[in-house]
Amino acid sequence: MKALKDRIEADGVAIGTEIVKVDSFLNHQIDVALVDEIGKEFERRFHGQGVTKILTVEASGIAIACMAAKYFGNVPVVFAKKATPNTMTEDFYGAEVKSFTKGITSIVKVSKKYISQEDRILILDDFLAHGEAAIGMAELVKQAGAELVGIGAVIEKRFQGGSHRLKEKGYHVESLAIIDSIKEGKINFL
Amino acid sequence: MKALKDRIEADGVAIGTEIVKVDSFLNHQIDVALVDEIGKEFERRFHGQGVTKILTVEASGIAIACMAAKYFGNVPVVFAKKATPNTMTEDFYGAEVKSFTKGITSIVKVSKKYISQEDRILILDDFLAHGEAAIGMAELVKQAGAELVGIGAVIEKRFQGGSHRLKEKGYHVESLAIIDSIKEGKINFL
Repeated sequence: MKALKDRIEADGVAIGTEIVKVDSFLNHQIDVALVDEIGKEFERRFHGQGVTKILTVEASGIAIACMAAKYFGNVPVVFAKKATPNTMTEDFYGAEVKSFTKGITSIVKVSKKYISQEDRILILDDFLAHGEAAIGMAELVKQAGAELVGIGAVIEKRFQGGSHRLKEKGYHVESLAIIDSIKEGKINFL
Repeated sequence: MKALKDRIEADGVAIGTEIVKVDSFLNHQIDVALVDEIGKEFERRFHGQGVTKILTVEASGIAIACMAAKYFGNVPVVFAKKATPNTMTEDFYGAEVKSFTKGITSIVKVSKKYISQEDRILILDDFLAHGEAAIGMAELVKQAGAELVGIGAVIEKRFQGGSHRLKEKGYHVESLAIIDSIKEGKINFL
């Protein structure tokens, strides 16, 4: 997706060899028009596959999932939670996820009410790095007995192996911008 | 906003006398079409006030802010963070916020890069209860020297006093559904 790559080149900040910071347009400040285009592109990549729900994880994935949902006929968005507020009283599906940027392991949870056997789920998220978040969400879909249509990432860091791990499990993975390496302050696309 | 009140009456769950659970359409599963209508209504309430940015706090506020932003001419959304990932290295504005549902005090933070003196900020969030989150976000706006246009909440629990506290500080507050009391499993609107 050219507009996205251009934006990453213009405003993304390389930190070391592992991190690219895109908080000026994707995960702190959000360029809503760009995220709208991202949503449209995800629909193009997963067109005609009967998606009934979009699953993401708080917090950065929410904007992407909601903007995409309208292109999938306003299907509901479900965002997995990383903590248990006192309003989450009923049964939930849960899976462990290691956060690459935060260096902690958390449990992502989705209420059993919001994914069912009849659902055809599309997982969307901002980054695909080692694949931990996506594997955790795929586990939630499996627990619910739903069908996983595919996994879409806005930015994939190919060198961290997440897409390889997901494809080995047989999942359909689509990344809108694929970073091959981060070296000497430069972001190199595949 | 009638469609919202109808939805709260149909799908909101009263817990005790303090909590109304709307996780089937607003803050776990998201009804994107409804949130789009909510965004449109916020624009009607804050029309012509030159909003340059929408500020919210992760996680539930993000969907609302993004869907509203397009009605405000695709202004950027900035979401305050409750934790400090290792990608947040620069200076930030910070304010303490007590979470009513989670029973904890956290610090909400916004990078200094994303609110400036020239900004006219609209704060949006899902709930207005005791007003803690809104007061924290207003403090961030003040630290930045920006103008606070107003504060919009999807659901206000009037009996918890938040809107009174905010109006005493001189802020323009708009709530799309105002709950007067929660009694014996029933949600009573003002």
